[in-house]
Amino acid sequence: MSAIEVGQSAEFSKTVTEADVVLFAGITGDFNPAHIDQAWADASRFGGRIAHGMLSASFISTVLAMKLPGPGTIYLEQTLRFTAPVRIGETVTARVQVAEVLPKGRIRLATTVVKQDGTSVIEGEALVIGPR
Amino acid sequence: MSAIEVGQSAEFSKTVTEADVVLFAGITGDFNPAHIDQAWADASRFGGRIAHGMLSASFISTVLAMKLPGPGTIYLEQTLRFTAPVRIGETVTARVQVAEVLPKGRIRLATTVVKQDGTSVIEGEALVIGPR
Amino acid sequence: MSAIEVGQSAEFSKTVTEADVVLFAGITGDFNPAHIDQAWADASRFGGRIAHGMLSASFISTVLAMKLPGPGTIYLEQTLRFTAPVRIGETVTARVQVAEVLPKGRIRLATTVVKQDGTSVIEGEALVIGPR
Amino acid sequence: MSAIEVGQSAEFSKTVTEADVVLFAGITGDFNPAHIDQAWADASRFGGRIAHGMLSASFISTVLAMKLPGPGTIYLEQTLRFTAPVRIGETVTARVQVAEVLPKGRIRLATTVVKQDGTSVIEGEALVIGPR
Repeated sequence: MSAIEVGQSAEFSKTVTEADVVLFAGITGDFNPAHIDQAWADASRFGGRIAHGMLSASFISTVLAMKLPGPGTIYLEQTLRFTAPVRIGETVTARVQVAEVLPKGRIRLATTVVKQDGTSVIEGEALVIGPR
Repeated sequence: MSAIEVGQSAEFSKTVTEADVVLFAGITGDFNPAHIDQAWADASRFGGRIAHGMLSASFISTVLAMKLPGPGTIYLEQTLRFTAPVRIGETVTARVQVAEVLPKGRIRLATTVVKQDGTSVIEGEALVIGPR
Repeated sequence: MSAIEVGQSAEFSKTVTEADVVLFAGITGDFNPAHIDQAWADASRFGGRIAHGMLSASFISTVLAMKLPGPGTIYLEQTLRFTAPVRIGETVTARVQVAEVLPKGRIRLATTVVKQDGTSVIEGEALVIGPR
Repeated sequence: MSAIEVGQSAEFSKTVTEADVVLFAGITGDFNPAHIDQAWADASRFGGRIAHGMLSASFISTVLAMKLPGPGTIYLEQTLRFTAPVRIGETVTARVQVAEVLPKGRIRLATTVVKQDGTSVIEGEALVIGPR
């Protein structure tokens, strides 16, 4: 693997489908009505069903593991600020950018998830050990 | 809903099965070989396949949404420190405990995930708005 | 656990999505064209695809296991009368109400599933052993 | 379709896998620890995880819809007595047998689910309208 340098970035985009939300609820047991009850969600402040925040957050893990630093990455820390909801059918892009290269293979990255219209969905930071 | 008080806690336990890991990979696109490649994982530092860290982290969201503060909870922030891997077949318990009750319905909670043998898997903190 | 009393009730609501129907067909092998063949279903008496009756019935089990009597409940008997179909995208509420508290921890409950517009979908009765 | 006669029977067999149980929990929201928490289940009266009763019951619907009376069948009623648990990895056979041919296309059937060793898992009766 080539050396990791500050400023490098990578991203992963995916449409969040109803099937994704149904399966994510099923795996995690998070049946918050905001995600799985259309009638309840229509009457809520969001006016419809939204995806689990941790589903969008997981796309950050996807970029880290698949692209930068890549396969074999070990996850140490992640901070997440959920800044806007993601509706079913919307497309999000998780983006990571190297902020700091640390001793012992540790790398700090700025991590964001944005919607196709540019709205920020998640902001935060990851700390990982890159693959050897 | 009764008043939320500092010290209240709730938890959710689940065995992390191979099916969970396969489905989580499929939803998120996180095909880190540590999760989906048995041959690769056997030769890795963990000596076998492990679950996605964000899968275990998602069980925190499950407790927040299903139990404390409960259905309708809005997720604002989460910090995560991944302290040990979870192998396929292990059972984990996500636990949340109210640390601070803030203005405007905001609640800060200590959040942990531990394995059945007591090993800490995730440590961190959540900030949410409780259901009205 | 506090004592179970006649008249107590609990419920669980969920939108029945296409993903649910596809997955339910896949798990059970029930590929009735009414559920998985849009062309066939469009020409049928229902004029479109409907969910499996046993899927809606399963939400009764969900309330029994998750809420009343709650985790650890053992299912002994269930009667089901399917009174109307559920279309993909409709939201249903399963409701159980304690009808009789019997010796040896047995509890008889009235069980119904209704759609968001109030249409009855399933009527019947459950017999369970509550958690100790 | 040839005429339905009293005594006709059909069956469907399937191994109940861990993936089936995980997906069934995910679709229905039934996260009874008896199904999804190995540590809890090991300490329970069953000494391990068991499948959802309604999952085994759904195989009755599968035989009705796929074989006898076959595609297009409309489900009117089902009674279920759960007589033994099904462990993950066990194979069950759902069997239906025509008990009575009634006016207006209605058919009453004896319905059973048994394990590979002959243990009865579910006993009951179905009432359906056969396909035209």
